Amino acid sequence: MTKEFQLVGIGNAMVDVLAHSSEAFLAEHGIEKGIMQLIDKDQAVHLYGEVGPSTEMSGGSAANSIAGFAHLGGRAAYVGKVRDDQLGAIFAHDLRAQGAVYETPLAPADTEAETGRSIVLVTPDGERSMNTYLGVTEHLTPGDIDAAQVAGAEWIFLEGYRFDGPESHDAFAKAISACKGAGGRVAITLSDPFCIDRHRDAFAEMLKNDVDLLFANRAEIEAMYKDAGDFDAALEAAAAEVAIVVATESEHGCHVLRNGKRWHVPAIPTKVVDATGAGDLFAGAFLWGLAEGFDLEACGRMGNIAASEVISHLGARVEADLKALFRTHGIIA
Amino acid sequence: MTKEFQLVGIGNAMVDVLAHSSEAFLAEHGIEKGIMQLIDKDQAVHLYGEVGPSTEMSGGSAANSIAGFAHLGGRAAYVGKVRDDQLGAIFAHDLRAQGAVYETPLAPADTEAETGRSIVLVTPDGERSMNTYLGVTEHLTPGDIDAAQVAGAEWIFLEGYRFDGPESHDAFAKAISACKGAGGRVAITLSDPFCIDRHRDAFAEMLKNDVDLLFANRAEIEAMYKDAGDFDAALEAAAAEVAIVVATESEHGCHVLRNGKRWHVPAIPTKVVDATGAGDLFAGAFLWGLAEGFDLEACGRMGNIAASEVISHLGARVEADLKALFRTHGIIA
Repeated sequence: MTKEFQLVGIGNAMVDVLAHSSEAFLAEHGIEKGIMQLIDKDQAVHLYGEVGPSTEMSGGSAANSIAGFAHLGGRAAYVGKVRDDQLGAIFAHDLRAQGAVYETPLAPADTEAETGRSIVLVTPDGERSMNTYLGVTEHLTPGDIDAAQVAGAEWIFLEGYRFDGPESHDAFAKAISACKGAGGRVAITLSDPFCIDRHRDAFAEMLKNDVDLLFANRAEIEAMYKDAGDFDAALEAAAAEVAIVVATESEHGCHVLRNGKRWHVPAIPTKVVDATGAGDLFAGAFLWGLAEGFDLEACGRMGNIAASEVISHLGARVEADLKALFRTHGIIA
Repeated sequence: MTKEFQLVGIGNAMVDVLAHSSEAFLAEHGIEKGIMQLIDKDQAVHLYGEVGPSTEMSGGSAANSIAGFAHLGGRAAYVGKVRDDQLGAIFAHDLRAQGAVYETPLAPADTEAETGRSIVLVTPDGERSMNTYLGVTEHLTPGDIDAAQVAGAEWIFLEGYRFDGPESHDAFAKAISACKGAGGRVAITLSDPFCIDRHRDAFAEMLKNDVDLLFANRAEIEAMYKDAGDFDAALEAAAAEVAIVVATESEHGCHVLRNGKRWHVPAIPTKVVDATGAGDLFAGAFLWGLAEGFDLEACGRMGNIAASEVISHLGARVEADLKALFRTHGIIA
C-alpha cells in the first residue's frame, strides 16, 4: 500500500536572519564559530541591534531538508511550531510553496514567545555561526503530533536540535511509536556536537532502540561515539547500532555504512558562499533517493550534489533545479 | 555652517518579498513586467500564496538610496512609515545598521494596515515586476514630518511613489518648505511612468517651482515631458525647469544636464541578476558624490558603479564596499 507521505520531518521551525560578519565581530561578541548556540529573546534583540543589514529567509534544519525533498517532488510533510505572526506566515508560506504539507501547530498571536529565529552570521570564508532564539518552537508538545499523519509516513525524520524543549522527548516518542507501529522507519540527524552534549543519553537510547538511519557529520559522530577512539571506529560503532549510517565530511564527501559494507562518495568541488543548510539539503536529497528506490551510493551522490548547490549561495533552501543537476551528473534519466 | 544631515529621504517604507518567477507566471496573473503596480491587502495575500519560496529584504526606493548614501559614510536620515510589527522592525533595523538615522513614525501594532511590502517577481532575465501593498506607509501625514530635521538637511530627496497616499502632497509641501526655508535643496525621483500618470499635475508643479535636482530614467522623463517629442527634447525641457537633470538609460549609462551643459557617462557592463534597486542606488551614490563636492561627471560615474553593484545580486541594498569600488575605478583616492 502506498503511504500518504514518503517523509514527515519534525524540527524547530525557524526563520533565518542572515548577516555578513567579520571574524572580529564574532570574537567581540563571544560567538563560537561554526556552531549553533541558543540565546534568549533579550539576547536576540541585543545581537540583532549589533549586526549589519540582513536578509530574512525561512530556515530550520529539518525544514530545509523537507523543503529539498518536496522540491524534488517527494510527498512530504513538516511538523514544527510557529506563532501566528508575520515571520510564522513567512515560514509556512515557504514550505508550502515548495510543495510540502504544513498544517501549522499555530501559537496564538498574543503568545509571548515569537516565531523562532536564528541570527546566522556568515564570515568571509562562508562558514556560518548560528545564534538561535527558539521562541514558540521550543514548546512543541505531544499534542502537536498528529499520530495519523505520522503513521502515514514511510519515513520520519527527526532533528536533533528538537531535543531542546521541555516536552520534546515525549513528542518524539509519540511520533516514533505511531510511525513504527504502522511499519514506518525512523531517520535522525545529530544536528551538532553541543546538542549531543546537552542530550547525550536521550540520543544514545534512541539510536540503540529506534533509529533506522543516522545522519551526522564527522564532528557529530565523533562526539556521539567518543569512546570509540577515532572517526572510523565511531562509524563502526554507529553501524553496530543503526541499520544505515551516513556521515558527511565537508569537502571529503560522505561515508555510507550498511550491513557491514561501506561506501565513500566524493564531494562536488564548490566555492562556498554560505555553508548554511549543507547537511540539511544533503539529508533531504539522500532521503529522496532512498524513498525513490535508488541504491545507497546514488543517494550519497544526490546528497553531495544538493549540498554543493545550497552552499554556493546565501540561504539554506535550494534554488537551482536539483533534478536537472542529478540529470547532468547522470544519476537520473 | 555644517548641517546635521547631508541628505534626508522621504519615501514609502517597504519590505521586499523577492521570488523568482517565470514569464508565464506574470502572464497568468496579469502582471505587467518591469513596473510597479499597487495591490490591496487581499490581493497581496492571494499573490503571496501563489509565488514560490521567497526571501525578505528591506527595500523601498528612497530607503535604498538612503541606505547606499549612509553606507558611503554620508550623514543621512530617512522618513517613511512602518507599523510596530516584525516587518517594521526589520525595515528599521536595516536602515540603522547601514548608519542612517531612522526615527520611525511608528503605527501601533493594532493598526489594520501592516508594514508595506512589495512582492518583487524576478524573471530569468533579471527584470523585476513589483506588486506593492503600501500598508501604513500610504498614511504618512504632515504630522510625521519633523520640520527641524528637514531644515537640518543640505538636501532632501523625495520619492515619486510617495504621491500615492491621501496626505502625501501636504507632507511633501511641509518638507519642501522647511528645507528650502533653511537654505536646503530638493531632489526628486519620478519613480515610474505609471506613477507619473497618476500624479502628473503634482509632479509638474513641483518640478517647475521646487525641484533642484531631478532623477529619472528614460521612460520616466519621456512620460513626464511627453509633449517634447523625443528623449533629447524631454531632457532639454526638464533642464529648462530644473537646475540639475540626471537621466539614467540602463546599459547606456546616464546623462547629466546643468547650465546648458550636458555629460554622458557610460554604464559599467554587468550581468544582471536582479535589476531591483538600480535607480535607487544610482541616486544614492550620485547624491553622495554631490554632497562631498565631486563634479557632476564623477557623481554620474559613482551612480553607475553603485547601480552595477546592486543589479549583480538579489536585493535592492548594496552588498559590496562601494568606496572600494570607487577607488578601483580611480574616482576617489
